Amino acid sequence: MTTYLITGCSRGRGLGLAMLKHLSSKPSEQVGTIIATARQQTPALKKVVDGSAGRIVFVALDITDVTSTKKAAAEAEHILHGKGLDVLVNNAAIHSYSPNGIQEMDDLDNVLHVNIGGTHNVTRAFIPLLEKGKQKKIINISSTVGSFGMAERYAPLPYHGYKISKTGLNMLTYQYAHSFAEKGFTVVAISPGWLKTDLGGSIADLPPETGAEATLNIVFRVQKEDNGKFYNIHVPGWENHEGINAYAGEIVPW
Amino acid sequence: MTTYLITGCSRGRGLGLAMLKHLSSKPSEQVGTIIATARQQTPALKKVVDGSAGRIVFVALDITDVTSTKKAAAEAEHILHGKGLDVLVNNAAIHSYSPNGIQEMDDLDNVLHVNIGGTHNVTRAFIPLLEKGKQKKIINISSTVGSFGMAERYAPLPYHGYKISKTGLNMLTYQYAHSFAEKGFTVVAISPGWLKTDLGGSIADLPPETGAEATLNIVFRVQKEDNGKFYNIHVPGWENHEGINAYAGEIVPW
Ligand SMILES: NC(=O)c1ccc[n+]([C@@H]2O[C@H](COP(=O)([O-])OP(=O)(O)OC[C@H]3O[C@@H](n4cnc5c(N)ncnc54)[C@H](OP(=O)(O)O)[C@@H]3O)[C@@H](O)[C@H]2O)c1
Ligand SMILES: NC(=O)c1ccc[n+]([C@@H]2O[C@H](COP(=O)([O-])OP(=O)(O)OC[C@H]3O[C@@H](n4cnc5c(N)ncnc54)[C@H](OP(=O)(O)O)[C@@H]3O)[C@@H](O)[C@H]2O)c1
Repeated sequence: MTTYLITGCSRGRGLGLAMLKHLSSKPSEQVGTIIATARQQTPALKKVVDGSAGRIVFVALDITDVTSTKKAAAEAEHILHGKGLDVLVNNAAIHSYSPNGIQEMDDLDNVLHVNIGGTHNVTRAFIPLLEKGKQKKIINISSTVGSFGMAERYAPLPYHGYKISKTGLNMLTYQYAHSFAEKGFTVVAISPGWLKTDLGGSIADLPPETGAEATLNIVFRVQKEDNGKFYNIHVPGWENHEGINAYAGEIVPW
Repeated sequence: MTTYLITGCSRGRGLGLAMLKHLSSKPSEQVGTIIATARQQTPALKKVVDGSAGRIVFVALDITDVTSTKKAAAEAEHILHGKGLDVLVNNAAIHSYSPNGIQEMDDLDNVLHVNIGGTHNVTRAFIPLLEKGKQKKIINISSTVGSFGMAERYAPLPYHGYKISKTGLNMLTYQYAHSFAEKGFTVVAISPGWLKTDLGGSIADLPPETGAEATLNIVFRVQKEDNGKFYNIHVPGWENHEGINAYAGEIVPW
């Protein structure tokens, strides 16, 4: 009975909510308590929580607010009564778009603050609970647009601040992975695919449900030997989308 | 007569001041006006400026203050009277050290704000002057500790926030390089070596003067075809220091 906590579960068509739904469809011997966090319990989230027969529990968490992350960790400890947290999924993030060129980008500090700083705030607050957990998995939802290995391909996309934030998130992932390797942690970055969410837009490749299921398949699969790695999702039939191993469930170059 | 602007020239044993000194030792047919910037004109900087027979001009610049970067760009335009700036060296940065573990790191936001956000503030403010310059070089002083390719080697160093900031700076470098390639810019990251400065500490490999000279050799050498690359310095005799092409003047893996 693995326990989960996911950040950024507020949006009806977001990846966070889709992961919650997919997790709660699993047998209870496999998936235990799921803690759904968001800045606020939106109607879409409340519906999923209420329909989960108590398996999903809402906890308020703003990832940029250190007090909120500590409060959420204390609530989670209470909810899990001493059992520890097995899997933390750092999913919450914001986008950044500078269509008039990088020199017009005004939100760089904020996107770094949310996507890197926020992930750090949450991770550090939940380390004690994860240490008590059996699986000790920290999953940082990243993006291939933050990859240097794919930077040339994505260079035309004017998501400068977002890319930099995901590159930095990847290095944060690497640093946590190394720091907690000896304690048996598995810390990985996963690119969940280009998804039809508010962030991904309607012309994206895949519905959020497909991304959620495939992301969770990687979450279930990764073990200690995967610590400090960066994976994309596996979507059968889409392995060679655009000829780039886009959805092959393989390692993404940093 | 190439014109230069360097950020972070305040400290007596800093790389910025050492680069100023080295540049001003070059014949005036090679190096023209050098704009030395710092938050304040320290005694050490004033001495170098005063001894330069007018070749080095001080301009106040706090890289985290957008108003200050714009004011500095206006002053530089005036100083260069219409000639444009050839080379911008983004040297200013802060260190970050979390000896008690990454989970105790409290300064992540600030180190990202200064080292990535500050470099962006300066770069965007000077783009118009650089467009008027002949060489159009933007040099971001980075560090190999921000390299994923060398991350395993440097994993034991508890400079988590600093590493993440330099990784992000590298992606910022890549994004500017791509964005301004068609305008003929050369935007590169350079690792100046491990230097005996306030930041590098006294047990570092090389004196700041050696790092400054070798960094400037890369600055002189890089051309449009090097745009978007990351170099280390070349120090004769130190090419295979610790067996890792440390000081070979070659490309560093991102
Ligand atoms: N969609 C894609 O194509 C795609 C591709 C690659 C990676 N990703 C990544 O996948 C993850 C989920 O993205 P998505 O597509 O589902 O985006 P989304 O629909 O925009 O959802 C983002 C979520 O993050 C939350 N969030 C933002 N700032 C927060 C904060 N300070 N505290 C707490 N929550 C906060 C939002 O909450 P509010 O509703 O309160 O704002 C929202 O629930 C992100 O990490 C994203 O970068 C997405
Ligand atoms: N030393 C090394 O071993 C080493 C290795 C790799 C890379 N580097 C890089 O080399 C560059 C120079 O470092 P260093 O070793 O010479 O360090 P340093 O002696 O600590 O000098 C850093 C400089 O940055 C300035 N600075 C910091 N924040 C600033 C701000 N907001 N506005 C304007 N200036 C600011 C400092 O000014 P104040 O005096 O006003 O604080 C100082 O002049 C940095 O980018 C560093 O990351 C150094």
